[in-house]
Amino acid sequence: MDALVSLCKRRGFIFQSSEIYDGINGFWDYGPLGCELKRNIRDSWWRDVVQLREDVVGLDSSIIMNPRVWEASGHTAGFVDPMVDCRDCRKRFRADMLCEEQGLQLEKTDQGFRLPAGTVCTACKSKNLTEPRAFNLMFKTFIGPVEEDASVAYLRPETAQGIFVQFQNILAVSRQKVPFGIAQIGKAFRNEINPRNFTFRSREFEQMELEFFIKPGDDAQWHAYWVEQRMAWYNRIGLPPARLQQYVYPQSELAHYASACVDVMYEFPFGVQELEGIAARGNYDLSRHQEYSRKSMEYFNQETKERFIPHVIEPSAGVDRVALAVLCEAYREEWVPKGEGETLQAEFGKPPPAGYELRTVMRFAPAMAPIKVAVFPLVKNKPELVSKAREVFDMLRDVWPCFWDQTGAIGRRYRRQDEIGTPFGVTVDFDTLEDNTVTLRDRDTMRQIRLPINELLPRLAGAIRGSAPTAAE
Amino acid sequence: MDALVSLCKRRGFIFQSSEIYDGINGFWDYGPLGCELKRNIRDSWWRDVVQLREDVVGLDSSIIMNPRVWEASGHTAGFVDPMVDCRDCRKRFRADMLCEEQGLQLEKTDQGFRLPAGTVCTACKSKNLTEPRAFNLMFKTFIGPVEEDASVAYLRPETAQGIFVQFQNILAVSRQKVPFGIAQIGKAFRNEINPRNFTFRSREFEQMELEFFIKPGDDAQWHAYWVEQRMAWYNRIGLPPARLQQYVYPQSELAHYASACVDVMYEFPFGVQELEGIAARGNYDLSRHQEYSRKSMEYFNQETKERFIPHVIEPSAGVDRVALAVLCEAYREEWVPKGEGETLQAEFGKPPPAGYELRTVMRFAPAMAPIKVAVFPLVKNKPELVSKAREVFDMLRDVWPCFWDQTGAIGRRYRRQDEIGTPFGVTVDFDTLEDNTVTLRDRDTMRQIRLPINELLPRLAGAIRGSAPTAAE
Repeated sequence: MDALVSLCKRRGFIFQSSEIYDGINGFWDYGPLGCELKRNIRDSWWRDVVQLREDVVGLDSSIIMNPRVWEASGHTAGFVDPMVDCRDCRKRFRADMLCEEQGLQLEKTDQGFRLPAGTVCTACKSKNLTEPRAFNLMFKTFIGPVEEDASVAYLRPETAQGIFVQFQNILAVSRQKVPFGIAQIGKAFRNEINPRNFTFRSREFEQMELEFFIKPGDDAQWHAYWVEQRMAWYNRIGLPPARLQQYVYPQSELAHYASACVDVMYEFPFGVQELEGIAARGNYDLSRHQEYSRKSMEYFNQETKERFIPHVIEPSAGVDRVALAVLCEAYREEWVPKGEGETLQAEFGKPPPAGYELRTVMRFAPAMAPIKVAVFPLVKNKPELVSKAREVFDMLRDVWPCFWDQTGAIGRRYRRQDEIGTPFGVTVDFDTLEDNTVTLRDRDTMRQIRLPINELLPRLAGAIRGSAPTAAE
Repeated sequence: MDALVSLCKRRGFIFQSSEIYDGINGFWDYGPLGCELKRNIRDSWWRDVVQLREDVVGLDSSIIMNPRVWEASGHTAGFVDPMVDCRDCRKRFRADMLCEEQGLQLEKTDQGFRLPAGTVCTACKSKNLTEPRAFNLMFKTFIGPVEEDASVAYLRPETAQGIFVQFQNILAVSRQKVPFGIAQIGKAFRNEINPRNFTFRSREFEQMELEFFIKPGDDAQWHAYWVEQRMAWYNRIGLPPARLQQYVYPQSELAHYASACVDVMYEFPFGVQELEGIAARGNYDLSRHQEYSRKSMEYFNQETKERFIPHVIEPSAGVDRVALAVLCEAYREEWVPKGEGETLQAEFGKPPPAGYELRTVMRFAPAMAPIKVAVFPLVKNKPELVSKAREVFDMLRDVWPCFWDQTGAIGRRYRRQDEIGTPFGVTVDFDTLEDNTVTLRDRDTMRQIRLPINELLPRLAGAIRGSAPTAAE
């Protein structure tokens, strides 16, 4: 993981926010490559969940909403973590996690929580800990110039409620009939007590949420459908089934209104952790908003004359978590033969065997790669050759993010692109001037083929869009 | 303007945020069509400013940053509006705007501001107004569970500072040399005293900002370059030169560190207002961050051995404002002949003349239109015809957001699409089953041509991508 974090900074995927001011705990910035990776993730999700479906429409709701939204949703009262302080070393912990790390379990009481006997501070080993106190995770702010209760507002802790409160407006404008869905991508904020695991648990993050509204009773079937759909998407963006798991909630762990929940888990270097939760939430949210707003949340089926508050299936994923999983999955250290031959998986801390050298490569699925194609003029001091390479570059850049590199030995240029996961390299050489062919190099196999320039676009289009990992073979 | 606001709600472009809870002043949600429109604006800007340029890279920095960022930038001390209250009717105003509406000008004093004699409350005409007080527009929040000074943080009032504080990191990773730029799209927040003019002045909004770093002395030439580039982009997305103006700041209105500033203004129904500011800001921001962080913000030119803090040109646009301008520009009420003939501009409040009917049409540039193509099977009860239309639909939807409509008379279906600005309609009829041709209808001219199905994709691709407003003629 350290090597990946280091590469993320060195090559411009992820920086600490406000680094020149010693950072700010739980906030991250995405650099030139990181923001392209996130764009690819968002665009792929949007295409899959909205554009290619007739039964889902999009929404882009505000981060700050009327605070009554959070009363209705239950967040004002219940969106809390139990927090505990060490009186000796002043460190602060999430009480449930502090217990868990010690093989203990936080106890629930009528008033709240209690630490089990024997709990110690994991930092200084002191037993001098405060009682756990409930801490609301919503960031608070004030609308208007006066800081008083009447002007309190919150940064949304999830994008989902923005969807529920606009349910009737969207139903009225979209000509949709149940079953149908509303999808949203946007920032959300949680005042986490202990942000950790790089970008995995941060205080500002981005969600991709779908609320799929269904007829009551159809919950099990639609829940299964969406679990399958979402798993298939993760495979398509390059997370293999072998590293994905489903955590099926037992009845005892479900919220009282939920009938099913499955978490999509990825095997991160720091443990198996959640990327997305897919929950069958019944009609809890719409019912609560009906109660608090006194506006009907009912749906009227004109054909069957039925009237009901729809149930909902909620696939809710984190853009930053998916990005981190894609980065972890892509990262490889390999021993590559200096001539031809098979690549070996590098062994940690060991030098490569004789005749091999180390390469770091990000094996992104082509659709996820921040840069799709690099174009290399073989030499930079031959104007016709450089100008020919520019023609090829301009043609490709009109379609995809591309990189131009004319500096250094061609082998070093390949390695630089391997390290940022550019799946294809096009080299323009002296033969190109004769016969309009170029070499196309595949990042993963490192094999090269020769092809006419006019075959580049269709071949790359197929490889980048589809699931095939390689174009050159 | 009222008709547009009404259409925006009725057809799902823009809703009031939290409407079921009586809204929240200064916050807006974008519905199914509005969020596609915003996606088109963002994508077009990103393509123009980042993807098609080798000298600009992207960034996606956090909304909440270390608060020292805002001390350095001057926002903590100086990002204030003068606020005044009416003691009689309790209404609150921005003092400068209150004066302006009465043909007066707010007076500056050593301590702050003073209302000129004769200023009254525009709501109740009372002269019983408070003295103007400075009010900081940054939304405040607290990181961690304790609400104390040490934990204060702010929602960014602009995305630009995220770029400046990462200047050295990006310089190090991107292999760029001055001149080069860093671009960012993201949310920003300002606690406006009087949000107004629909989405034009809201408290939560989205910015598209570029910081283009240059060698000191090159400011005038690069500033002129970016004004020209940005104006051309506005024309390409469908805002005509006739409705755009440039406001060139006189020396007396420039910030002390700035050498030039031009606002791109659009003629909104509520007045000529700013879409974007393009400022030559010298090295003010980088110098301040160097001073406050004690980290060098210098650039070293390896060829000339020069060392300097770069100057910057900052084109800063508002996504919501551009979206509103595009909506205003597109909105038309027309009298269209029931048979053939020339369309007339509707006259306000008058019924159409004999033989004409009213149509409302959103004349978006095709690249901005939320839905690019609607597909209509002529009748819905002929399975071969519907299935043929589905084939066409699936082919087009793979490339663009498309709409399927099989309900109602074909004329009514056209009108529904006109009202949301879908530039092209494809009708599949009985002849299609014989000869694989369809009719392609152009939204603006309402003319129809017949063409083979396999010519649809290339013809539409050209029309949607390029600046040509029509494909069918």
